[in-house]
Amino acid sequence: MELSALLTSAGINVAVCVVLSSLYSVLRKQPGNLSVYFGRRLTHVYPTRPNQHICFQRFVPSPSWIVKAWGTPEAEILAGAGVDAVVFLRLIVFSLRIFAVAAFVGVVLVLPVNYYGQAMRHKQIHSESLEVFTIANVKQGSKWLWTHCLALYIISFTACLLLYFEYKSIAKMRLAHIRTSPPNPRHFAVLVRGIPWSPDESYSDKVKKFFTKYHGASYLGHQMVYGRGTVQKLMADTEKMCKVLISDDFARTPSILRSALCTGPSSSSAFRILSKEPESIHGKPPFSDPAIASNAKEVPAAFVFFKTRYAADVAAEVLLSTNPMSWVTNYAPEPHDVYWKNLSIPFAQLWLRKIAILLTAIGFSVVFIAPVTFVQSLTELNRLQHKFPALRGLLEKNHMKQIFTGYLPSVILILFLYTVPPTMMLLARIEGSISRSGRKKSACHKVLYFMIWNVFFLNIVANNVIKYIENTLAKKAKDVPNELAQTVPAQATFFMTYVLTSGWASLSSELMQPMMLICNWFKRAILRRKDDLTAFSFPYHTEVPRVLLFGFLGFTFSVLAPLILPCLLVYFFLAFLVYRNQILNVYITKYESGGQLWPTVHNTTIFSLVFMQLIAMCVFGLKRSKTAVTFTFLLVICTILFNEYCRQRFYPVFKNTAAEILIEMDQEDEQSGRMEEIHRDLHKAYFQFTLISKQMGSSEHLSPPTPREEESVEAPIATRPGLVHQGK
Amino acid sequence: MELSALLTSAGINVAVCVVLSSLYSVLRKQPGNLSVYFGRRLTHVYPTRPNQHICFQRFVPSPSWIVKAWGTPEAEILAGAGVDAVVFLRLIVFSLRIFAVAAFVGVVLVLPVNYYGQAMRHKQIHSESLEVFTIANVKQGSKWLWTHCLALYIISFTACLLLYFEYKSIAKMRLAHIRTSPPNPRHFAVLVRGIPWSPDESYSDKVKKFFTKYHGASYLGHQMVYGRGTVQKLMADTEKMCKVLISDDFARTPSILRSALCTGPSSSSAFRILSKEPESIHGKPPFSDPAIASNAKEVPAAFVFFKTRYAADVAAEVLLSTNPMSWVTNYAPEPHDVYWKNLSIPFAQLWLRKIAILLTAIGFSVVFIAPVTFVQSLTELNRLQHKFPALRGLLEKNHMKQIFTGYLPSVILILFLYTVPPTMMLLARIEGSISRSGRKKSACHKVLYFMIWNVFFLNIVANNVIKYIENTLAKKAKDVPNELAQTVPAQATFFMTYVLTSGWASLSSELMQPMMLICNWFKRAILRRKDDLTAFSFPYHTEVPRVLLFGFLGFTFSVLAPLILPCLLVYFFLAFLVYRNQILNVYITKYESGGQLWPTVHNTTIFSLVFMQLIAMCVFGLKRSKTAVTFTFLLVICTILFNEYCRQRFYPVFKNTAAEILIEMDQEDEQSGRMEEIHRDLHKAYFQFTLISKQMGSSEHLSPPTPREEESVEAPIATRPGLVHQGK
Repeated sequence: MELSALLTSAGINVAVCVVLSSLYSVLRKQPGNLSVYFGRRLTHVYPTRPNQHICFQRFVPSPSWIVKAWGTPEAEILAGAGVDAVVFLRLIVFSLRIFAVAAFVGVVLVLPVNYYGQAMRHKQIHSESLEVFTIANVKQGSKWLWTHCLALYIISFTACLLLYFEYKSIAKMRLAHIRTSPPNPRHFAVLVRGIPWSPDESYSDKVKKFFTKYHGASYLGHQMVYGRGTVQKLMADTEKMCKVLISDDFARTPSILRSALCTGPSSSSAFRILSKEPESIHGKPPFSDPAIASNAKEVPAAFVFFKTRYAADVAAEVLLSTNPMSWVTNYAPEPHDVYWKNLSIPFAQLWLRKIAILLTAIGFSVVFIAPVTFVQSLTELNRLQHKFPALRGLLEKNHMKQIFTGYLPSVILILFLYTVPPTMMLLARIEGSISRSGRKKSACHKVLYFMIWNVFFLNIVANNVIKYIENTLAKKAKDVPNELAQTVPAQATFFMTYVLTSGWASLSSELMQPMMLICNWFKRAILRRKDDLTAFSFPYHTEVPRVLLFGFLGFTFSVLAPLILPCLLVYFFLAFLVYRNQILNVYITKYESGGQLWPTVHNTTIFSLVFMQLIAMCVFGLKRSKTAVTFTFLLVICTILFNEYCRQRFYPVFKNTAAEILIEMDQEDEQSGRMEEIHRDLHKAYFQFTLISKQMGSSEHLSPPTPREEESVEAPIATRPGLVHQGK
Repeated sequence: MELSALLTSAGINVAVCVVLSSLYSVLRKQPGNLSVYFGRRLTHVYPTRPNQHICFQRFVPSPSWIVKAWGTPEAEILAGAGVDAVVFLRLIVFSLRIFAVAAFVGVVLVLPVNYYGQAMRHKQIHSESLEVFTIANVKQGSKWLWTHCLALYIISFTACLLLYFEYKSIAKMRLAHIRTSPPNPRHFAVLVRGIPWSPDESYSDKVKKFFTKYHGASYLGHQMVYGRGTVQKLMADTEKMCKVLISDDFARTPSILRSALCTGPSSSSAFRILSKEPESIHGKPPFSDPAIASNAKEVPAAFVFFKTRYAADVAAEVLLSTNPMSWVTNYAPEPHDVYWKNLSIPFAQLWLRKIAILLTAIGFSVVFIAPVTFVQSLTELNRLQHKFPALRGLLEKNHMKQIFTGYLPSVILILFLYTVPPTMMLLARIEGSISRSGRKKSACHKVLYFMIWNVFFLNIVANNVIKYIENTLAKKAKDVPNELAQTVPAQATFFMTYVLTSGWASLSSELMQPMMLICNWFKRAILRRKDDLTAFSFPYHTEVPRVLLFGFLGFTFSVLAPLILPCLLVYFFLAFLVYRNQILNVYITKYESGGQLWPTVHNTTIFSLVFMQLIAMCVFGLKRSKTAVTFTFLLVICTILFNEYCRQRFYPVFKNTAAEILIEMDQEDEQSGRMEEIHRDLHKAYFQFTLISKQMGSSEHLSPPTPREEESVEAPIATRPGLVHQGK
C-alpha cells in the first residue's frame, strides 16, 4: 500500500464523517427524533420542546452540538452523569494526551530514521510504499536504533506519569463522590448470602437472631430476598396484563376503568397484595400481610441494615462465621443496581458457576474464529460459483468479484463480532453477579480479553487464520517471538486502515444511533406510537473495550510504525466529542459504580505498554542490537514495578471503602440529626416488589426509571410519562 | 538395579536405623546429654533428674521412648506443644494413611500388571531387574492399562477424601484453639504501620489522635515501636557487657558486686534506665522517663490496643485510611513472636523488598545447580589426578575410585543443600516478616519450592544436569511431556534409593541430633560449662518441605513404580515415632501460628496429585491408550475443582479470624468481669525492652525463654537458671 492510498482512504473517511455528522446535526433537530437523541434529557426534566414548526433552520447542518460537547465543563458532567461517565471520558483524554506525545516523538524522531534506514533511492514521497515508514526499513545492526529505544523510553515514561496522575485524581474523585453524595442506602446495607437452613426456623428469624446476637449494637433490621416462586410468577402475570392494558386500546379507555382494572376491589389477590406495599413500608414490616408471607418463598439471602455506614462496611469486609460458606457478606449494590434474579442462586453454587463461565468464555474466545473462517471460506469465488451456478455471470464481472472477495469476509467477521457483547453479557449474568453494574463490568472484562485476543492476535493474519495458528503451533514454540517480531510491523498497514474504517465508522454509528433511529421511525410510521421513550444506560461493556483496543494498537505500533498515530489522534479527538455529546444527551445514569472502571483501564494500559516493549525487544533482537534489547528489558522491569506500586497505592481504594470517610459521614449525620430519617427510608429502598406497585399507580411524577427486573422490560413501561400520570 | 540389590540396601538401612536408635536410647539416658535430648522438658519444669549413678541400666538400649512416643495421646501433645505441632504430626499421619492405601492398591492391582506386562521369560524374582516392576514393562496399546487408571482414581479419591476431613478437623481445631485458649494479648492488639509523618507532632501523638477520633469507642491505648537507634545500641552494649559478666569468672565474684555492676548506682545511664523499666510498666506509661523518651527514636509503627477482640479484628481487616499506604494494619503477632527488627522497615519499602526477594529466591533456585555441578565435576578422576599428581597412586585402587566417583558428588550436593534453609531464612528475614512464625512460614514455602524444583526436576538426571537442561531447552518445547513421561518412570530406582538413604538417614540424624551432641560434648569437655541449655523451636521450615517432598515422590511414582511405596510407608512410620518423640522432649513452643501450616500442606498435596495425574496421562499417551488419557484428564479437572472448593470452604478460616468467635469470647469475658484485668496486661505484653531488663534481674524463676531479639542470642542467656537466680 502506498502513502497516497492511505491518504486517499483517510480523506474519504474524513468526508464520510463530516457528512454523517452534518446529517446528525440535522436529524437531532427534528422533533420526531427527540427520543433517540435526547433520551437522557427527556427522562430527567421536561425538555424545552424544540421548534415544532417547519422552518429553514431545521434543515441546515450546524456545529452547535460540537460546541456544546466541547464546552461543557467536567464538573457539570460529573454532577449530571456521575463518576463512571467522567472516568470513561478521562480514559479518552488520557489516550489523546499520550498519543499526542507519541505522535510527536514518532514523527520527529522515529519516522526520519525509518525513512532513511536503508541506502535506497526514494521515490516521490506520495507514491512511497508504507513499509518504508516502518521499522522494517531499518537495516540490520543499524546504529540508529537508539532513537527507537529513546522513543520507547519517552512514551513509556510519559504514559506512566499520566497514568499515575490519572489514577490519583480518579481515586480522589471517587472518595469525594462517596463523601459528598447524599445519604445512600447502599452504605447502610449489606447483602448476606448463604444463610444456613434449619427446619424449625425461617430464614428471616435466623437473620434476626444472628445479627441481634453478634451485632446487636449496630443491627437495624433486614429485608429478605424472595425467590422466583409464587410471587415472582404473579408479578410476571401482572406485568403481562399491564402490558396488554397499557397498549393503545387501553389508553383510550376512561381512567376510572383503568384504575379499577389495576388496583380496584375487583382485581385478583396478587394485584391487591402488591398495591398494599407502600403502606406496609411505612408502618409495619414488609410482608406482615399473611397472604404474602405464605405465598412468597424466602431464599437464603437478605439485605441487612445497620445503624451506621461503618458498621455496614465492617460487616461486609469481615469474616462473620466460622463456616466461610455461610453468612457470606458483600457490599450491597445500589437499590436500582440490584440484580434480583441472581440473588436466589445458592451461594455454594457460585464458585462452580464462576469456573464454568471462565472456561466457557475462554473456549468461546479461542474457538470463535473457526466458524467465522468457515463461513468466510464459503464466500470464495470458486465455491460460490460451484454451489450457485446462476451467479456465475454476475461473479465474472470485475467489480463484483472485488466486492465478494474484498468486503464480504470482513462483513461476515463484523456481523459475527456483533454477537460477542450480548454473549458475554449473558455469560456474566449466568456467572451470578449480584448487580447490574457488576454484570456489566464482568462482561466488559470478557469482551476486552476477547477483542485483544481475536482482533489482534488472530486477525493479524487477515484471512487464513486457522492455517496460521496451526503453522505457529507446529513450529517450535521458541520461534513465536521471532514470528511476532516479523509479522507485527508488517501488519501495521492493515491496522492503519482498521483504525480509519472501523474506528471512525463506529464513532459515526454511535453518534447516529442507526438502530434506534430505524426503530423509532418504525414505531412512529407503522405502529403510530408517540412519546414512547426508551432510554438506555451507557454501554460500558462495548465502548470501553473498543477504546482500549485502539489504545493497545496505538501503543504496539507507536515505535514500529508511527504513521498509525495521526489516525489514532483523530479517532480519539472525534471520540472525545461524540462520547461527551452522547453522555450529555442520550444515555441515562441508572446506577453508579464510583469509577471502578479505572483499575481495568490502568491494567490494560500497562499490559499494552509491556506488550509494546516486548515486541520492540524482539524486533531489536532481530535487528541485532544488543544494547537496545538490554535497555528495553530494563524498561519492562520498571513498568512492571510501576504497576505494582500503583496496585499497592491506589487499588485498595477501589476495592473497599476507607473507614475514615464512612466514620466522618456517620459523625456528621449524627450531629445533624439526619440519621433517623435515613434509617426510616432503608427498608423502602431495598423493597423487591416496588417496581410493579409503582407501575400500578403509586408514581406521583416522572421519576427516573426504576429498573428492578429485566432492563429491557422495565424501560419502556416505567418511562411512559403520559400513561403513568393517567394511571392515578 | 536388581530387586535383591534394593532389598539388600533396604536391609542395610534398616540395620543402621536399628543401631542408631539403640544408640539413641542409651545416649538419652546419660545425664550429660539431658540438654540435648530433653530441652523442652528442662525449660518447662524442673525435670526429675535421671539416675546420676553409673549402673547397668544406663547402658542397655531400651524401646521405652518408642512406647512413649507411640502412646502419648494427641490431646496431650496439643496441650503441651500447641496446634502447629499437632498439625505437623497430622501431616505425617495423613501421609501414612494415604500411602498405606496406595501401597495396597499398588501391590495388589498395579504390580502384577506391570510384572506380566510383556511376554517375556521371567528370571527368579530376586534377580529380576527393578524395571520389570514399573509401567515401562507394560507393552504399548496394552488393554490392561485400565488397572493403572483405576489405581489412579482410587488413590486420588482417597487422598481427596482424607484431605477434606483433615482440613475440616484442623479448621475445627484451630477455631477451638482460639476459643479455648487463655486471653491472648495478640487478639486485642493490631500492628499499625505507615503512620504519616508531620514535623510538629510525634508519631505517638498522631496515633492517639487518629484512633481517638475514628475509633474512640474501642481504642484503649498504644505502644510505639522504637527504632534501632540510640536505645537499641545501648541495649546491644548492655547485652555484650552482660555476656562478659555472666562468664565463668563473673560467676565467682560476690553477688553484691555483681548486682552493683549491673543495676547499682554506679552503672551507666542505659543500665539505670533499663532497670527502671519494670516499674514504668506497672505505674506510668512506658518511657515516661524523659531520659528515655529523648533517647529512643520512634519509628512509624505501633501496636494499638482495643477494648475488645472484635474491634481489634475489625481494625486489622478493614481499610482504615483513604491512602492505602498509610495507617496500614495487620493482625499483631504474639508478643514472643514479634520480629522487632523488621518493624522499623518503612512500610512503603516492603512491596519492593518482596519483589526483590521473590526474584532472588527464583534466581537462587534456578542457578543453584550450576556451582554444585561445577564442584562435582572437579571430583572427576582425570581432573583430580591432573591437579594432584600425588593422589595418583591412591586413586588407582579400585574401591577408592568407587568412593570418589560414587559418593563424593552426592556428598557435595548434600553439603550444598544444607546451605539452602539458612539462605531461605535469611531471604525471609530481609523480606520484612513482622513475626518469627511468618518468617519461618515464608522460608518454609521457599525451601519447599526449591526442593521440589531441584531435587525432583533437576536431580532426576543424576550427574550431568546442566547438559540435560540444555538438551531439553534445545529440543522442541512440545516434547517436554514426552521427555518427562519417558524419564520419570526410568528414574524410579534412583528415588527408591533416595528414600531409603536420604529419608531414613535424615530421621536418624533428627533423632540423634549429632550437631547438638557434639556441641554439648565440646562445651562440657573443653569449655567445662554445665547446665547450659539451648532449646530451639521446631524447624518447620526444614522438616515440612522434607516430608512434603517425600509425599510428592510417593504420589508421582505410586502408579508408575509402586515398589517405592513400601519404602515410603516405613519412612513415614519412623517419622511418626521420631517427630512425636522430638516434639515431646526436645523442641520448645515459643509461639503459635494456629495451624496456618495446613493450607500449605493441602496445596502441595493437591499439586502432587495433579502432577501424578499429568505424568500418568503422558505415560498413557506414550502407551497409546486414549481411553486412559481421557479418564485421567477428567480426574485432573475433578481434583482442581475439589481444591477450589476447599479453598472456598476452609481457607478463609486460616486467613482471618471469624468475628463470631471473637464476639463470643468478648461477651464471656465481659460477663465474667475479666476484661479489666486483660486490659491492664496489654501494654506489658508488647513492651519492646522487657528482654534485657528481665535478664538483668527481674526473673524470679525459670520461666520459658523470652525470645525478643535474636533467637540465637537470647536462648543461652535467658535460660541459665543458676545465674539468673544469683543475679538478684
